[in-house]
Amino acid sequence: MTTVLTSIREFEAVARDRLDPVHYDYFAGGAGDEVTVKANEAAFARLALLPRVLCGAGSPRIGVTLLGSRVAMPVLVAPTAFHRLADPEGEKATARAAAAAQTIMIVSMAATVAVEDVAAAAPGATLWFQLYIQPDMAFTEAIVRRAEAAGCTALVVTVDSPAHGRRYRDVRHGFDDLPDGLCCENMRDGDHEQARPIVMSPAISWEHVDLLRRMTRLPIVLKGVTHPADARLALDHGVSALYVSNHGGRQLDTVPAAVDLLPEIVAAVGGAVPVLVDGGIRRGTDVVKALALGASAVAVGRPVVWGLAAGGECGVARVLGLLRDEIEHTLTLCGLASLGDLEPGLVRPC
Amino acid sequence: MTTVLTSIREFEAVARDRLDPVHYDYFAGGAGDEVTVKANEAAFARLALLPRVLCGAGSPRIGVTLLGSRVAMPVLVAPTAFHRLADPEGEKATARAAAAAQTIMIVSMAATVAVEDVAAAAPGATLWFQLYIQPDMAFTEAIVRRAEAAGCTALVVTVDSPAHGRRYRDVRHGFDDLPDGLCCENMRDGDHEQARPIVMSPAISWEHVDLLRRMTRLPIVLKGVTHPADARLALDHGVSALYVSNHGGRQLDTVPAAVDLLPEIVAAVGGAVPVLVDGGIRRGTDVVKALALGASAVAVGRPVVWGLAAGGECGVARVLGLLRDEIEHTLTLCGLASLGDLEPGLVRPC
Amino acid sequence: MTTVLTSIREFEAVARDRLDPVHYDYFAGGAGDEVTVKANEAAFARLALLPRVLCGAGSPRIGVTLLGSRVAMPVLVAPTAFHRLADPEGEKATARAAAAAQTIMIVSMAATVAVEDVAAAAPGATLWFQLYIQPDMAFTEAIVRRAEAAGCTALVVTVDSPAHGRRYRDVRHGFDDLPDGLCCENMRDGDHEQARPIVMSPAISWEHVDLLRRMTRLPIVLKGVTHPADARLALDHGVSALYVSNHGGRQLDTVPAAVDLLPEIVAAVGGAVPVLVDGGIRRGTDVVKALALGASAVAVGRPVVWGLAAGGECGVARVLGLLRDEIEHTLTLCGLASLGDLEPGLVRPC
Amino acid sequence: MTTVLTSIREFEAVARDRLDPVHYDYFAGGAGDEVTVKANEAAFARLALLPRVLCGAGSPRIGVTLLGSRVAMPVLVAPTAFHRLADPEGEKATARAAAAAQTIMIVSMAATVAVEDVAAAAPGATLWFQLYIQPDMAFTEAIVRRAEAAGCTALVVTVDSPAHGRRYRDVRHGFDDLPDGLCCENMRDGDHEQARPIVMSPAISWEHVDLLRRMTRLPIVLKGVTHPADARLALDHGVSALYVSNHGGRQLDTVPAAVDLLPEIVAAVGGAVPVLVDGGIRRGTDVVKALALGASAVAVGRPVVWGLAAGGECGVARVLGLLRDEIEHTLTLCGLASLGDLEPGLVRPC
Repeated sequence: MTTVLTSIREFEAVARDRLDPVHYDYFAGGAGDEVTVKANEAAFARLALLPRVLCGAGSPRIGVTLLGSRVAMPVLVAPTAFHRLADPEGEKATARAAAAAQTIMIVSMAATVAVEDVAAAAPGATLWFQLYIQPDMAFTEAIVRRAEAAGCTALVVTVDSPAHGRRYRDVRHGFDDLPDGLCCENMRDGDHEQARPIVMSPAISWEHVDLLRRMTRLPIVLKGVTHPADARLALDHGVSALYVSNHGGRQLDTVPAAVDLLPEIVAAVGGAVPVLVDGGIRRGTDVVKALALGASAVAVGRPVVWGLAAGGECGVARVLGLLRDEIEHTLTLCGLASLGDLEPGLVRPC
Repeated sequence: MTTVLTSIREFEAVARDRLDPVHYDYFAGGAGDEVTVKANEAAFARLALLPRVLCGAGSPRIGVTLLGSRVAMPVLVAPTAFHRLADPEGEKATARAAAAAQTIMIVSMAATVAVEDVAAAAPGATLWFQLYIQPDMAFTEAIVRRAEAAGCTALVVTVDSPAHGRRYRDVRHGFDDLPDGLCCENMRDGDHEQARPIVMSPAISWEHVDLLRRMTRLPIVLKGVTHPADARLALDHGVSALYVSNHGGRQLDTVPAAVDLLPEIVAAVGGAVPVLVDGGIRRGTDVVKALALGASAVAVGRPVVWGLAAGGECGVARVLGLLRDEIEHTLTLCGLASLGDLEPGLVRPC
Repeated sequence: MTTVLTSIREFEAVARDRLDPVHYDYFAGGAGDEVTVKANEAAFARLALLPRVLCGAGSPRIGVTLLGSRVAMPVLVAPTAFHRLADPEGEKATARAAAAAQTIMIVSMAATVAVEDVAAAAPGATLWFQLYIQPDMAFTEAIVRRAEAAGCTALVVTVDSPAHGRRYRDVRHGFDDLPDGLCCENMRDGDHEQARPIVMSPAISWEHVDLLRRMTRLPIVLKGVTHPADARLALDHGVSALYVSNHGGRQLDTVPAAVDLLPEIVAAVGGAVPVLVDGGIRRGTDVVKALALGASAVAVGRPVVWGLAAGGECGVARVLGLLRDEIEHTLTLCGLASLGDLEPGLVRPC
Repeated sequence: MTTVLTSIREFEAVARDRLDPVHYDYFAGGAGDEVTVKANEAAFARLALLPRVLCGAGSPRIGVTLLGSRVAMPVLVAPTAFHRLADPEGEKATARAAAAAQTIMIVSMAATVAVEDVAAAAPGATLWFQLYIQPDMAFTEAIVRRAEAAGCTALVVTVDSPAHGRRYRDVRHGFDDLPDGLCCENMRDGDHEQARPIVMSPAISWEHVDLLRRMTRLPIVLKGVTHPADARLALDHGVSALYVSNHGGRQLDTVPAAVDLLPEIVAAVGGAVPVLVDGGIRRGTDVVKALALGASAVAVGRPVVWGLAAGGECGVARVLGLLRDEIEHTLTLCGLASLGDLEPGLVRPC
């Protein structure tokens, strides 16, 4: 990784060379015919920026405070599974890079390093914990307690997964389990037991969210909301933030591109809570567009995995640094000094 | 057929390898420049799904009752000709697979197995019979009587064929007749006579439909309606269901994609009778979209032929199973437990 | 030419094989970057047909009367230059095929056979004569007299050519003159003189059209009108028909597709005179669409040249026969028995 | 360069063959993923022309007066850097060709020939000077004085560059400095000193424009305005002309195509000052479209560089001649004799 990589697409190319093709396809692929996977990226190219000039704006400030945590840039590490498939250090490397970049890592419930070990490996890191609510609420509570104990400061509850997505690349490869020695460490039920499988159940409902809220004082971020009516329901149920996502196109195929879903959700939320978004973000211009359309921050999943596979902790750091640098640069070129100056008129369809 | 086939497109690839290229082109091709053939599939990719979350919906129920027959899933076997070109067992294999899947097979007037033999081969099957009204109404009546006697429970009258479509692949191959030993068995006029040719006449009119209604107590489904004004006329003439179709792009080229025709026909019908649709359905998401837009069920033609050519009865069963499985999965991912919960707001253009 | 050719595109392929590449490019090419050449064909594929069913329509009648001449089908031979580049018999072969098809040939002012010889070669033919008004009005009158004497029954005045179009394929080939032995026979000024060059002058104006009207009793068809305001002016100047055309994309590049210009011109004309159209017509469905949108007939230029190059008189006959047959077939599939039943509701954008 | 080049695309191909690939990429490339680079050209193909006929218009007159200077055609030489990378004579050759074509050359602040030498090499040339306002206003003033002394008659102040654009082709090549012997001659601070680097600072504001206005009597053209609100602000600050530009896609990627920005800026300016535009102009039809939409003139950057690289002064002359010739030809084919007759109704989206 000594050549200059100037785009996340180039990181992906390097990652593809290094990864087992089965694992590359696991990370890159999506559900069905991958219509949504492609739509996520394509949507940003159809949004144009209309910069202002001669603002005398000075250096851009791109820090933001999310649920009480200050981050140096409005880009979080989205929860993605199985980092040890990409690098032996796995989620520990990712956490160290996130901490160095002063941003939040959302640790996946399907991490291949236990959340306690992730936290220990990156002492200064701000960690949030991603959770699929398990029908066995006692086990769900046990996991929540582990996340709390490990110092996680928010729960990101994924709600777009009443069932596993059908990812046909994996089906064709017969990839349905982790290699020997790797497992979802957060799913161990006690110290020496085998990890439980993650259950995705259609029975999970708003009542479970209410139970969860009573179970913990951690703020709850609802991830995977695409319908404005559900955004309003989420507010009724007291969530602390909404996270617009189509799961990177990995759950239901032909859901609209994430950024195209954003404006309606932002309107439905009406500023009551922060709105996050992931899906298709590959450039600083993409981040600025999402923020202009009302997101408080974005998250990146595959870009982090490509960085991890391409260069371990250093690779993740370079991906985050590239985005950080491009966000500052984009703000400057838009004539703005602060994320607070972003407004929808900066963006238009083209 | 031991590899895992995860899409109808893959079934088509296997079928293409196994079929005589002339016969593959007969099944795959369409009229004119095949603009409509391509449009049928492309239209579904331009419709997006907007799922709901945290519905606590439980297992999806996808059975539906059509003209008094209960089917386990809202996917019928569309009428297609010449199944014995795809498999020696021909329509018998298709009927067995349809019966096993607990759905309806619409037996083509151009079947290469007589409707009585199809019925005998699949005792539990629900069969409907597809009919081109022949100008010789006595012969038409004779065919209707055979279909009644064979136990068919509805007549699907194709009305988009006042003439044979111009399919230039067939013209180039010189394919204008079945190989020796095969014929349209339903066109035999008496036990030992040669099969008559199927006549497609522009003289057929609403009066013929009225005559047909007086001739039989079977419900009449009108197949091939694309204009809302004709949908209203059809109600005036007492049909029991409408079936939106452009004949898989095989009759008039540049007719709009079937699913794009659906909403206006549904509006014109106003719930008076069920509306079916075929054309371009290749995924469970396609089925869910058509039903959300107001169809009571869909039908699949080429997918069944690809299954038949790829693996006979078992291949058809796998194609139907794949669709069934994907419909349930899609409903679950949409947060719905029942087809009755589908509504147009789930779908949007993108 | 013994293989079955089922589309004009196939005729073009055969023609391309037979023609000198320089001459193929002369016929196939257009102005500038050929944006309009491509747009003409592409526009028809974006117009969908919405057929009616069960009309009991009987055999289609596709004859039409234009400026007093009865033609057997609503497809005229558009004026195109230099037919002897495509076939030794040149315009004589084209005229014989047009006469056999009982349609009108519009003889080009740039024909390589004199209009008198074209008329003599095809005694039963209905000929119209295409004219670029020459600034030397005495010479213009001499040509008009020749056309009258040869029995032409209308003048088609091309008005989109105040200058020669820039066709860069010809520039690159250095193709700027006919080979030895060929010339624009209608441009001879007296029996033994050399042919004059065709002058295209920006000075030609409505006054010249008025002069021409006073010069002859032949009806005047104005060819190349694209702006509705000019259509209204043309009525004021007493023309007998309008002919919407962008010169097959050979004059000004990036003019809209001809069929996209048609509805506004038809509206501006308000039924006062017939409207013709050429550009991009390759199928019977294209003809039916143009007529549904208000054209009285269409004309085809390149298709005739491809037929001529592929098979001489017989090739032109086959091209015209293919279109005739497809028009009848399309009408039948639309449920119509007569061109008079066509209406704009049959066509919609898609 | 003896073959006939009939389009700027062909000049680019020849230039590409002759240039160091690193330098070709410097000229051809743009910011980010080059979305805007491609959009600039693509936008013109989506605008159609609707010509008028029989206008009797005579020869077209395409001269125009801009800020008191008469030019023979409405195409200026846009400011582009580093002409000596394309030709040893560099900006001197460009200026001679511009003078011969009787148009204006906007000399780049990043020229590799000093503005005094450019002026001396092309005595009859009308030169404008392009300026990035430097935070060191004394140095800015020194440059302005040099431009005045060299006879430049306007200042073109680039305002879309609060930072250098990220052009990843250059990053990948490691191209961040001129070869030995070349430098930005206009950045020398005194006769024998080394050239200063050009500073692009986000601190530059409308106040700096006001300072500049008080510093010189030269008219100020503001280049790089894309937002209508900034166009209105510019009028408040007394600029003499606006120049719509996205810097050829080289500054902020995903800014809309320049010609798509034009109508709103023209509306905002309301005729108070002339509006120029550059970006994607490759044909005479493009120029006519921009002028019909309200531009007083256009500028071309890369086309001039391709001409320069392909054939030095003669190459630039041929590029300008090709455009001049195509503009006249387009006007003639539109039925117009003068740029003043252009109006928005001539152009429509397609």
